[in-house]
Amino acid sequence: MIAVTILGNNSALPAHGRHPTSQVVQTSEHFFLVDCGEGTQLQMSNFKIKRSRIDHIFISHLHGDHYFGLIGLITSYGLQSRQNDLHIYSPEGLEQIIRLQLPSSHAMLPFNIHFHVLNKEETLFEDNHLRVSCFAVNHKIECYGFLFEEKHNPRKLDPEKVKLYKVPYSFYDELHRGKDYVTKEGKVIPNADLTIAAEPGKKYAYCADTAYYEPICKAIQEADLIYHETTYRRGEEERAALRYHSTTTQAATIALKANVKKLLIGHFSSRYEDVSVLQKEASEVFENCEAAVEGTCYIV
Amino acid sequence: MIAVTILGNNSALPAHGRHPTSQVVQTSEHFFLVDCGEGTQLQMSNFKIKRSRIDHIFISHLHGDHYFGLIGLITSYGLQSRQNDLHIYSPEGLEQIIRLQLPSSHAMLPFNIHFHVLNKEETLFEDNHLRVSCFAVNHKIECYGFLFEEKHNPRKLDPEKVKLYKVPYSFYDELHRGKDYVTKEGKVIPNADLTIAAEPGKKYAYCADTAYYEPICKAIQEADLIYHETTYRRGEEERAALRYHSTTTQAATIALKANVKKLLIGHFSSRYEDVSVLQKEASEVFENCEAAVEGTCYIV
Repeated sequence: MIAVTILGNNSALPAHGRHPTSQVVQTSEHFFLVDCGEGTQLQMSNFKIKRSRIDHIFISHLHGDHYFGLIGLITSYGLQSRQNDLHIYSPEGLEQIIRLQLPSSHAMLPFNIHFHVLNKEETLFEDNHLRVSCFAVNHKIECYGFLFEEKHNPRKLDPEKVKLYKVPYSFYDELHRGKDYVTKEGKVIPNADLTIAAEPGKKYAYCADTAYYEPICKAIQEADLIYHETTYRRGEEERAALRYHSTTTQAATIALKANVKKLLIGHFSSRYEDVSVLQKEASEVFENCEAAVEGTCYIV
Repeated sequence: MIAVTILGNNSALPAHGRHPTSQVVQTSEHFFLVDCGEGTQLQMSNFKIKRSRIDHIFISHLHGDHYFGLIGLITSYGLQSRQNDLHIYSPEGLEQIIRLQLPSSHAMLPFNIHFHVLNKEETLFEDNHLRVSCFAVNHKIECYGFLFEEKHNPRKLDPEKVKLYKVPYSFYDELHRGKDYVTKEGKVIPNADLTIAAEPGKKYAYCADTAYYEPICKAIQEADLIYHETTYRRGEEERAALRYHSTTTQAATIALKANVKKLLIGHFSSRYEDVSVLQKEASEVFENCEAAVEGTCYIV
């Protein structure tokens, strides 16, 4: 299960009570922060996000509406005596900006920050349950989307069948690996009779700020949920291209071509007070579409 | 008349829906911004402040909770195609921080920024109506308070008397300068009979972040309103001294010694959810005291 909580759904110029980009991606094991526009730490408080649980922050690109809240979050971590290492992933340049502001701001931080520079498509984080990787999008400056993929769980033991066939505990690992069980009497019990298919791992893609860019379809193919920006309405394709942003129909076309299950749209221009019209436009091309609402948690 | 709108009344760690420090000081002619913590531009939108009217921003010191919102405000000015020059006053170091972030953030700004370095007590802004100056306070790092003084208005003409004595229009300037009028018949009409005393100019002092520091009384003497921090409650003098902050009774004692008319307290520690107790403590020493509320405009 992957849960995405939207902290900011607006584009660069905050308006209509909407905030610049930020979202929390949560699995059973981890909290990740994706982008960190101004006011992110305030939004975390508003929506009761456990900020201390976040050890990895992914910054898509260095336009201010995606990172101006980071320095405030870091200094607040300092004031709260955080101990855990913090990992920050972004294109080149962020470390210099943060480190320049730290000395005057609040003395020494009681934790280490590790800055990781994004410069190619690669795996950024991986454990037994999850892989996080980045993929290039097409924006005015170097910019990456992030892909969160739960690993396919091994088959689970069927407790009743295991008991019925008296499979010894020492053989459980073998069952997990897919082996059949042979009883003392020499009877072969197929693995499929002793285990239950686990739910497939979920896949969530954050597509950052981008012009219409079909190459991202490869990375986000078959995702359960994607967040794709729709800065502008249909008909504004020229303006969108000039600014390396997307329109509603462009985002929906990407969702369609990548055969994803659900589309969440955001990064709305300040020119739109009511974003329901954006949702309507996108859903005419790709039906399972929602307009991101700040404070709402989307679960796949 | 001077109007002070509080945008943030909290200390460094945002809490209880309260924001880091920022306030707008408004006269009939000007809008000034004093400090600019994270979220200031969002608070301006919340409270319908005309941000485009602000040409001068005063930053007391370089702790992040007093300037982290500045880069976001500046880039938003850029997105809104601001044309007017912007003047920013702060201790040394801010220009480097802002200029480092501008290129990647949003190309060229369509307006000029003039950075002014504070390093002594001096007049920062002056016109026919108002003088703004800074005064040193006692904080962990270099830090200044700001004093807003309306100039004493000249006496106003009394329209009925001027008509009665048939004072020619060409003599009005002389009347403003305090001269008596001599009629054609040689009768001397005293200036005081032809003019009305204007209201005295108002005086507002923002005392920034500071330990208990009596030398500021000189600058803020007889002010109509002062904003003095009360990060901590009475009894926390040791903690306050260690962090170069003030308690409620210390702020109130300063108000008393400086013989000001009204005390507004703020910069509340996140440890206090209910700040009415801080107001109560301060008002036991200095009666005319209010606890600053975000979005409220205090007029003198």
